[in-house]
Amino acid sequence: MAGTSFSPTNSRHSLVLCASLVQNPMNLGALCRTAEVFGLTALVVPSEATRTDPTFRKVSVSAHRWQPCWVCSPEHLTKWLGEQHTAGYEIWALTRAQGAIALHQFQFPQRIVLVLGRELTGIPDEILSRCSGTIAIPQFGRIESLNVQTAAAIATYAYQCQHGFSNPDPSINV
Amino acid sequence: MAGTSFSPTNSRHSLVLCASLVQNPMNLGALCRTAEVFGLTALVVPSEATRTDPTFRKVSVSAHRWQPCWVCSPEHLTKWLGEQHTAGYEIWALTRAQGAIALHQFQFPQRIVLVLGRELTGIPDEILSRCSGTIAIPQFGRIESLNVQTAAAIATYAYQCQHGFSNPDPSINV
Repeated sequence: MAGTSFSPTNSRHSLVLCASLVQNPMNLGALCRTAEVFGLTALVVPSEATRTDPTFRKVSVSAHRWQPCWVCSPEHLTKWLGEQHTAGYEIWALTRAQGAIALHQFQFPQRIVLVLGRELTGIPDEILSRCSGTIAIPQFGRIESLNVQTAAAIATYAYQCQHGFSNPDPSINV
Repeated sequence: MAGTSFSPTNSRHSLVLCASLVQNPMNLGALCRTAEVFGLTALVVPSEATRTDPTFRKVSVSAHRWQPCWVCSPEHLTKWLGEQHTAGYEIWALTRAQGAIALHQFQFPQRIVLVLGRELTGIPDEILSRCSGTIAIPQFGRIESLNVQTAAAIATYAYQCQHGFSNPDPSINV
């Protein structure tokens, strides 16, 4: 199986942050901290080695002990996304792209896998083609874009504004 | 003067992120990147040395070249906040505290200084007493809280949802 569950604990919000393409363990650790704080169903990490990486654990400030982290390697990502779609999740990409929906105008489905891009190179076309579409955070600066974990945290907050703060999904018990 | 301007460029959104209490240059660099991406009036850093710190510059991915960074040391913060209040900014603290307003329910004033807490220790009472109140991001996890730069990015997005995406402040030209 491309994705495996880890550390099931309690009812969680049905947003899955898919960081299969993310490489920097600092970003992965920060994503784990954010996912735990917001009580997300899962963070998807690229390998088993991520879970024991010292930098990942340090930056997650112990969140790795509580946050379900599923493993899906980039090689298995296309197949895994298909499985999640079959399981009832909509698949969306968080990336700046032509035709992307602005985050503050996006209506989040309750069950969603949000695919994050690789540092510098983003999301390959073959993965984008498996997504229902792209979501982008409006930006005003001269530099290229937000850090991936910062962007993911903002998108997670936007999801929670629609589903999390008033309406956690009681059916999710991973 | 407790605070000095730096690298004025163009019209910006009138949110000031005050990181005078923040100590980690990685967090300060990430805040600079976020502030630049969202076109904020200023990021307030604790010292002149911050601007040339190699880690700060690396993590800011060149945002330090474009983002106005004002300097206010923690020792001058109380006085500086008073000056900003006189200049027409409301002062609010971003921190988890009894009686804090949930971020998604907060009505942002257009001109606001958002005071961020020091890593681990937060915001001293003497600074909190200078604020109109506290704003908190609802959280669901077992670990203590979000990273300061992650929380600030989420709050900045929430501000932009109310003021930035549709209504930049034309009077600001720092």
